[in-house]
Amino acid sequence: MVPRYSRPAMTALWEPEARFKIWFEIEAHATEKLGELGVVPPSAAKALWDWWATNPAIDVAAIDAIEAVTKHDVIAFLTWVAEQVGDEARFMHQGMTSSDVLDTCLAVQLARASDILIEDLDQLLEVIKRRAFEHKLTPTIGRSHGIHAEPVTFGLKMAEAYAEFSRCKARLIAARAEVATCAISGAVGTFANIDPAVEEHVAEKLGLAIEPVSTQVIPRDRHAMFFATLGVIASSIERLAVEVRHLQRTEVLEAEEYFSPGQKGSSAMPHKRNPVLTENLTGLARVVRAAVVPALENVALWHERDISHSSVERFFGPDATITLDFALGRLTGVIDKLLIYPERMMKNLDKMGGLVHSQRVLLALTQAGVSREDSYRYVQRNAMKVWESDGQLSLLELLKADTDVTAALPVAEIEDKFNLDYHFKQVDTIFRRVFGEA
Amino acid sequence: MVPRYSRPAMTALWEPEARFKIWFEIEAHATEKLGELGVVPPSAAKALWDWWATNPAIDVAAIDAIEAVTKHDVIAFLTWVAEQVGDEARFMHQGMTSSDVLDTCLAVQLARASDILIEDLDQLLEVIKRRAFEHKLTPTIGRSHGIHAEPVTFGLKMAEAYAEFSRCKARLIAARAEVATCAISGAVGTFANIDPAVEEHVAEKLGLAIEPVSTQVIPRDRHAMFFATLGVIASSIERLAVEVRHLQRTEVLEAEEYFSPGQKGSSAMPHKRNPVLTENLTGLARVVRAAVVPALENVALWHERDISHSSVERFFGPDATITLDFALGRLTGVIDKLLIYPERMMKNLDKMGGLVHSQRVLLALTQAGVSREDSYRYVQRNAMKVWESDGQLSLLELLKADTDVTAALPVAEIEDKFNLDYHFKQVDTIFRRVFGEA
Amino acid sequence: MVPRYSRPAMTALWEPEARFKIWFEIEAHATEKLGELGVVPPSAAKALWDWWATNPAIDVAAIDAIEAVTKHDVIAFLTWVAEQVGDEARFMHQGMTSSDVLDTCLAVQLARASDILIEDLDQLLEVIKRRAFEHKLTPTIGRSHGIHAEPVTFGLKMAEAYAEFSRCKARLIAARAEVATCAISGAVGTFANIDPAVEEHVAEKLGLAIEPVSTQVIPRDRHAMFFATLGVIASSIERLAVEVRHLQRTEVLEAEEYFSPGQKGSSAMPHKRNPVLTENLTGLARVVRAAVVPALENVALWHERDISHSSVERFFGPDATITLDFALGRLTGVIDKLLIYPERMMKNLDKMGGLVHSQRVLLALTQAGVSREDSYRYVQRNAMKVWESDGQLSLLELLKADTDVTAALPVAEIEDKFNLDYHFKQVDTIFRRVFGEA
Amino acid sequence: MVPRYSRPAMTALWEPEARFKIWFEIEAHATEKLGELGVVPPSAAKALWDWWATNPAIDVAAIDAIEAVTKHDVIAFLTWVAEQVGDEARFMHQGMTSSDVLDTCLAVQLARASDILIEDLDQLLEVIKRRAFEHKLTPTIGRSHGIHAEPVTFGLKMAEAYAEFSRCKARLIAARAEVATCAISGAVGTFANIDPAVEEHVAEKLGLAIEPVSTQVIPRDRHAMFFATLGVIASSIERLAVEVRHLQRTEVLEAEEYFSPGQKGSSAMPHKRNPVLTENLTGLARVVRAAVVPALENVALWHERDISHSSVERFFGPDATITLDFALGRLTGVIDKLLIYPERMMKNLDKMGGLVHSQRVLLALTQAGVSREDSYRYVQRNAMKVWESDGQLSLLELLKADTDVTAALPVAEIEDKFNLDYHFKQVDTIFRRVFGEA
Repeated sequence: MVPRYSRPAMTALWEPEARFKIWFEIEAHATEKLGELGVVPPSAAKALWDWWATNPAIDVAAIDAIEAVTKHDVIAFLTWVAEQVGDEARFMHQGMTSSDVLDTCLAVQLARASDILIEDLDQLLEVIKRRAFEHKLTPTIGRSHGIHAEPVTFGLKMAEAYAEFSRCKARLIAARAEVATCAISGAVGTFANIDPAVEEHVAEKLGLAIEPVSTQVIPRDRHAMFFATLGVIASSIERLAVEVRHLQRTEVLEAEEYFSPGQKGSSAMPHKRNPVLTENLTGLARVVRAAVVPALENVALWHERDISHSSVERFFGPDATITLDFALGRLTGVIDKLLIYPERMMKNLDKMGGLVHSQRVLLALTQAGVSREDSYRYVQRNAMKVWESDGQLSLLELLKADTDVTAALPVAEIEDKFNLDYHFKQVDTIFRRVFGEA
Repeated sequence: MVPRYSRPAMTALWEPEARFKIWFEIEAHATEKLGELGVVPPSAAKALWDWWATNPAIDVAAIDAIEAVTKHDVIAFLTWVAEQVGDEARFMHQGMTSSDVLDTCLAVQLARASDILIEDLDQLLEVIKRRAFEHKLTPTIGRSHGIHAEPVTFGLKMAEAYAEFSRCKARLIAARAEVATCAISGAVGTFANIDPAVEEHVAEKLGLAIEPVSTQVIPRDRHAMFFATLGVIASSIERLAVEVRHLQRTEVLEAEEYFSPGQKGSSAMPHKRNPVLTENLTGLARVVRAAVVPALENVALWHERDISHSSVERFFGPDATITLDFALGRLTGVIDKLLIYPERMMKNLDKMGGLVHSQRVLLALTQAGVSREDSYRYVQRNAMKVWESDGQLSLLELLKADTDVTAALPVAEIEDKFNLDYHFKQVDTIFRRVFGEA
Repeated sequence: MVPRYSRPAMTALWEPEARFKIWFEIEAHATEKLGELGVVPPSAAKALWDWWATNPAIDVAAIDAIEAVTKHDVIAFLTWVAEQVGDEARFMHQGMTSSDVLDTCLAVQLARASDILIEDLDQLLEVIKRRAFEHKLTPTIGRSHGIHAEPVTFGLKMAEAYAEFSRCKARLIAARAEVATCAISGAVGTFANIDPAVEEHVAEKLGLAIEPVSTQVIPRDRHAMFFATLGVIASSIERLAVEVRHLQRTEVLEAEEYFSPGQKGSSAMPHKRNPVLTENLTGLARVVRAAVVPALENVALWHERDISHSSVERFFGPDATITLDFALGRLTGVIDKLLIYPERMMKNLDKMGGLVHSQRVLLALTQAGVSREDSYRYVQRNAMKVWESDGQLSLLELLKADTDVTAALPVAEIEDKFNLDYHFKQVDTIFRRVFGEA
Repeated sequence: MVPRYSRPAMTALWEPEARFKIWFEIEAHATEKLGELGVVPPSAAKALWDWWATNPAIDVAAIDAIEAVTKHDVIAFLTWVAEQVGDEARFMHQGMTSSDVLDTCLAVQLARASDILIEDLDQLLEVIKRRAFEHKLTPTIGRSHGIHAEPVTFGLKMAEAYAEFSRCKARLIAARAEVATCAISGAVGTFANIDPAVEEHVAEKLGLAIEPVSTQVIPRDRHAMFFATLGVIASSIERLAVEVRHLQRTEVLEAEEYFSPGQKGSSAMPHKRNPVLTENLTGLARVVRAAVVPALENVALWHERDISHSSVERFFGPDATITLDFALGRLTGVIDKLLIYPERMMKNLDKMGGLVHSQRVLLALTQAGVSREDSYRYVQRNAMKVWESDGQLSLLELLKADTDVTAALPVAEIEDKFNLDYHFKQVDTIFRRVFGEA
């Protein structure tokens, strides 16, 4: 975790205090059920919850000091709780194994992290939608290969992003379900020393599903799927960030990150206004994606478990979720305040002497009976002249002077093919598909 | 694609012929709808389908030769079809862009590949289920950290695999839905020159969903999710493969890959029987996973598209699906024919002088009123002696001779804790959770 | 391997014939030395070489057919050779293990692949150098964050690429040395059944170093380092490719990939000239890099070896080297024929109303005694006006009208700061550092 | 950075204080040279160094507060220093750009980190060497595919590790040289506003090489190579860790991690002694490797730089070096204190009824004139019986009863093939190759 790329709510989730609190809840809920089942005295759970009701501070340092001796984190925690609660605490953790606590805790943390991320996505989607409708019909040039292609609208770009992040949200909801399971099944998953009813009880209390079959641990294909999903979302962030970076290029300058008063773009060059937020998002996407491969490598644990996954998760559990939360927030801010320059978009669109209309003429020629190959040749030879003139020549004028073209198409029909609105007649259709309204 | 790691049905899907056939179908269906809409003469589609009904051979070499000049694969294909069909063919591809064909074709290929993989998973699941029930109560030692922990059954190991590959199947079905979309939206996705009804028609004919909003291409977050899912499945394959490799180790030898007559394990050492299939699966898992990062890097295409994703997909579209198909088939064969040695499992289980029962004694001591810490200490000090004796000493005997222990627990109760069946009482519960039956 | 992204010399290296030929040479050289040592009759090697001298065709299908039975590739090969050579062939492979042959063969292949790649790099470097000197003083705008910064020359961009690919060459030479080792040490690397002198002899004949200590195999950290190095080179290719793609953007158009007669940029839009080669290189970089993670995962083989690395290498040995060879060739062609537009570079450079000179004024103000903070503020407030005017205002004129500025700097000195040549006075220095000449 | 996986010396290197100190040194050395060149008054550097000589505390919070306004870290730092030093400080940073400071600082940090890692490797190598000589002739079974192959010695396993980590050291020294360069070349690397002599001076003072040609930044192929090298080293750590984990498996137990008094292997199972350190190292290897892909993705920055690499390096600069340092230290401790059980090794070696000698009999038969195929068949048929008897049958006895075998080999010669020392006759040779002594 790098503090400058983190936000408090998500970070708090991964603090030792938060983890110990979840551990306690798991143990207390389990003890409660064990009491009901008659395995331990009902007074045990009561003692735990009574102490908990005093809202006790978690002494992380004390727990760490015990771990330094036992070299075992859960035992250290249990020992510390026993010191606080007294004799009744000895009934805690009956028939459970450390991983029951650790893995179920991780499930709670990842589920809560998912909830934050889902909310992040909702906010991002809302902002994108607003900008989409605001610029639903703002013409701008569509580019393939970085080269002017045909007109689109800025709203369509936003609709595309909206559809993509809607998919991301659906994926994240699925990924949350993957990891939100509770396993309290004992040392090797057989429930030999603990009734499955305990697992069911704790799962219900914590809002988790039960893990149908576990070993000592919850199987790591679940976590692999979770982190892979975060990696995909990060890539979608990168895509929108790269779009903004392109639009802010000096020669393009169709949009620009908000530049606050007092901000300095460069220590050396006072004239600079750089898309540093979206560049940063590009980097953060790499950081989030870095969790994917280790998570895949974590799946093939040996037999009923080895502990190699643990250190990986200590890094990337926090790092991937905290960084993704920050990145989603940053992207939301960027899109929310993005400076959008419709005049510049129109100026750029017009820049190529009408080349963006070449396809319509091609189609018209074909429909007028010229072979596809000839049509292509007639248009291309004029288009290349315009291209090489850097937009000084006009495609319309050249076509009107090309007798092969005029032999097939009346001049008025050629002129008609250079109409911008023609391209936007399906924008409403697309908006209805994406937003359910237009 | 490496021939030795491929199977014919999946490989055929990626041959040039298969691709050109799908291209033709897309073009012909689109022309059909364009005819209905009155954009082109209805005779155009008829001419195409009439030719198609002759079941014409696809002349890949001829198409390649045209591409060598045009440097454009779809134009080369259209030119070749036009040569075959004649004049009516000039109405094909009206208002479409190459990517409409290429991306929709890829969607068909990935959907069909998914269907094969889903069937592979079904076969694997069936085999795993059979072995699971066959060995539902075959005792074997559960191991955490590679060290004997407590007893499980071989059937439980299989149940775990069954649950994991069931999740893989659900993920694959979701991944299929991600990529099975049709986009026929023109040069920059605006439908400027083609009615959305064409897209809807082609989608329906090919069994795809429509892409709600595309640029020039179908957005690559879909493909990233697809390949990431394959990577997770590969990791699950690796996990089961590693399990078999461990079980076949000379010192363990609880299970063994089938070794066919005439097979030679080593050119130098005639005594060898190696788990080469599962080792190979471990490697193939790495190969499939190799597609994940490039697929994530493919998402952030520039503006309405750049073509950097294309070469990546030419490699990993075939490689990842062909290799995964092969790997699933190989794994199914391994599990189907796996030699399982229950006697050896029991012998290994007994090897540690009863250490595997240590937890039950610990629990009994705690329940008898000994503090958790003392209980642990009493059991651990005896367990360590057994451990260091390499199983020559018996934990039961040592405990019966430990007065701290016998002060708390009657000898008969200690002996009762060394009962194997105790561990299997919830196997039916777990089986019902996993298989819906026990 | 994807044929369209391959070249014949590199591809030939990975054909079965090439592999079998290397296998034969290893076996024959080894038999030769075994003969000298008196372990086998000297006639054995003679029989092998005599047969070899007849330049026999390698019957791949026959060898494959034997492997289908033995399930062991080296045994299949030895059996086939024995069928050809006769009785004397039984002395081949004495005391050796398959991996002695397989790993030493891979070392030969990777060394030869490296030689091709080094030559590729030499050709690329030569072309880059030519373009660097050609445009040593061609002014162009330097951009940070995609935003105009200060002037550079196109030659400097090329010098940067030259330095980078020179480093790549040095890394590749080191990577070649990593993998070019010979191991003929028997089943577990002890030389129990084969004299180390055999290894030394074969190594010398094949131009390899000896492997100081092997297990059954050559340790895979060597190969990991090799493929990681290819991944770095691929990333450098990506960097230069991305530079070209940016320069060809419609709004920038300072350089352009060569566009051949007859080429079609788009099936739909006849006006298009797209940077498809460099976009393709961007994708191929991802493909080559995909080999890195599997190669790292291949290192931790179990004990004296497991065979999980083998399938990975069957894919990525060919794929990574063939693709990198192709990519280097393609990049060489792109740079060689790159259309460079100095007028457009100058036009773009002038576009921002002189903003690119803001730093020099800042420095002059500071040196004239104005505090750094005030200097920055004076320049920034004028620069922002120019920025927002889209280059319609002139920074020089605004500064000359800013009394804070003119209070510190005479107008003539301000004007002097807008001199372009000033920026290029160290170009010779840099060229001498990079090329050893200027 | 995860505290439990870090050590103080490496961690300190990445603290804000350490970074700001290096920044100061860069600025002060540069000002010094600028003074010599007459660009700024010589008093400026004097003022800086005089203040520095007072060993001032770096007020990180104050600098952060300034950055919160300027949104630029280097400007914030310069402002703070100016507040401390006074008026003379305004000459700092003349003609430099932030990246001159940031990138040169990173070079210093990575070089110092490399020095720590090189020392770590030296300590690891020393420990491995000691254990290698200690067990130079301790027999143990060599395993391929996890299956007994032929005898090796434990010292040979250590020699292999020694050779591998020696290579890692050489690679790290090369990687250090890659990144230890100084760039002070101004806003776009042209030295327009700063003399190259400044760069040379600072480089010399900080023990760095000059960067022959930079853009605004030091090219990131250098860092990619650095992190890729760390990834390879991590994989070698994983390999040795996996070896220990295998050796400690219950059924094998030929070696064991040191288990300290008071340690608890499991909260549930008091009998457990788990190889948790090496399992942890397996996970940490994944963590270090996670830096490789992002570092490769950082190479293709746009034009003269974009800032996407920065966040990636803020994570993985510290994380990869701190984690690798910790891992090397942990591995050194594991090997140093590894409990090694020669009796158990011998017991395991004898377990397979002499199968490990099968190759020698095969060779003897071949040399006695039996064809390779027949020899293989005679030995294999007996070996398979032993295999299936789980070592109850003896290969020697079966061979002596096989008339095909005895027809070719006298019984005494068969018996001679079952001699263990035979396998170790080249151990001295290998040791001399690896250690230069035996």
